[in-house]
Amino acid sequence: MAGKLQKVSESACFGGVQGVYTFASDTCACDMTFGLYLPPQAKDGSVPVLWYLSGLTCTHENAMVKAGAQGWAARHGLALVFPDTSPRGQEVADDAAYDLGQGAGFYVDATQDPWAAHYRMETHVARELPDVVAAHFPLDMDRQGITGHSMGGHGALTLALRNPGRYRSVSAFAPITAPGRVAWGQKALRAYLGGDETAWRAHDTVALIEDGHRLDEILVDQGTADQFLDSGLKPELLAEACRKAGIPLTLTLREGYDHSYFFVATFMEAHVAWAAGRLKA
Amino acid sequence: MAGKLQKVSESACFGGVQGVYTFASDTCACDMTFGLYLPPQAKDGSVPVLWYLSGLTCTHENAMVKAGAQGWAARHGLALVFPDTSPRGQEVADDAAYDLGQGAGFYVDATQDPWAAHYRMETHVARELPDVVAAHFPLDMDRQGITGHSMGGHGALTLALRNPGRYRSVSAFAPITAPGRVAWGQKALRAYLGGDETAWRAHDTVALIEDGHRLDEILVDQGTADQFLDSGLKPELLAEACRKAGIPLTLTLREGYDHSYFFVATFMEAHVAWAAGRLKA
Repeated sequence: MAGKLQKVSESACFGGVQGVYTFASDTCACDMTFGLYLPPQAKDGSVPVLWYLSGLTCTHENAMVKAGAQGWAARHGLALVFPDTSPRGQEVADDAAYDLGQGAGFYVDATQDPWAAHYRMETHVARELPDVVAAHFPLDMDRQGITGHSMGGHGALTLALRNPGRYRSVSAFAPITAPGRVAWGQKALRAYLGGDETAWRAHDTVALIEDGHRLDEILVDQGTADQFLDSGLKPELLAEACRKAGIPLTLTLREGYDHSYFFVATFMEAHVAWAAGRLKA
Repeated sequence: MAGKLQKVSESACFGGVQGVYTFASDTCACDMTFGLYLPPQAKDGSVPVLWYLSGLTCTHENAMVKAGAQGWAARHGLALVFPDTSPRGQEVADDAAYDLGQGAGFYVDATQDPWAAHYRMETHVARELPDVVAAHFPLDMDRQGITGHSMGGHGALTLALRNPGRYRSVSAFAPITAPGRVAWGQKALRAYLGGDETAWRAHDTVALIEDGHRLDEILVDQGTADQFLDSGLKPELLAEACRKAGIPLTLTLREGYDHSYFFVATFMEAHVAWAAGRLKA
């Protein structure tokens, strides 16, 4: 697997290289594509890694071209990895809705048909892809951080909570904090994990914290004009869970910002700096 | 015309507002859409304007979401305008090729059928749209600068040369410097302006300079790994024309950079700073 990485493209970018690569994923049983940014510092040795998990409807490409992260990553000497959000292909189960199926993997390993054959995004992002990028690029895998937007914020928080010590920095932009309590999350978790809601709690940030999982600290930014704020994101549930658990949460409500990449780009500098401060310490 | 601007979207962005607007264009005889970024400084009064003209296949949206310009514009207090690259719509003449018709207006007013009815992008960008934005937003139209990428670099340079004194700063990313001497430019100019090549010279940067048009100074960045460097861009012709004419040209060849927005984003900070230095002087 790790030996058959194919280059889709490589472009010079802020002194480093923005690449797109694909490989035959054993985990997802289909070809999987990802973006990887190597900063200029990677020419001189291995660099820390910041994972960026994207939201519903996104591929590996959206954040890579819209989030403006590479300039800050170059400044701090971090690599960036942009995974896809689901398995892809004609043979992969799908749904006409934007919040289920391709583009909507929710960073879980599905146990239910027809999804279980390919939808193993937790293993893909937390196990398979780290092995692949470590084998091919000068990355210091002892210094990994994770962030993400919306469904990808949910992914960043849950993967960090489920893999203690793995990610030295954890942040999110407008994350889905409690998928088990909002419509799009319930729909996806029911489809992928089945009707037993106890199984959902292992993939729900607020429930994971309620059930005793911990992080050292979390950075979250959330726009107050976000169209999904009350219906799908619910930062107040995260704030309450962190308060009860004693997890330091830096949650900033950004007046007037919506759910778009204009919001993400605006606060990217701060999230990359947050990661750099913890990965390079 | 100026009274019927319709808001498509507005998003908070780096302390300002990234808007998208549409209006019934008399010039192009169709609805025309543009992006406009107002920096936070616009809350306190009128701000200088930097026009960004996009390249082949682009709409108003590409640079708006990919070029990373808003953060630097916010820092310097500049507004940004992102026009479309052609008229649009089912009633508008088109061509199956990417370098003619919709998405490929080349910033000229077409004189030939079937293009002349709608393809009046020079008047749209240099006359109509300035009136529209000046009527609706707090912009200091005495302080305008212009830049662009590829076909949009051609547009920035030719509009500046054809409107002496209008644009106080002029720069370009990988511009088409001499459309009359390269295949895609010849194809477009012949279609829009007819077979008499003397008419093309008024829309060809190198020819305009050869024919006596002048600018105070020009900033150009060009990637050395640009796939269109020799076949379509030819910065050496611009350098030679500027040398003979005594126009100060800051042309930097950027080792290993291609024609993508990763190149544009990398050097955007410098181009916005260049504009700010001249617009705010």
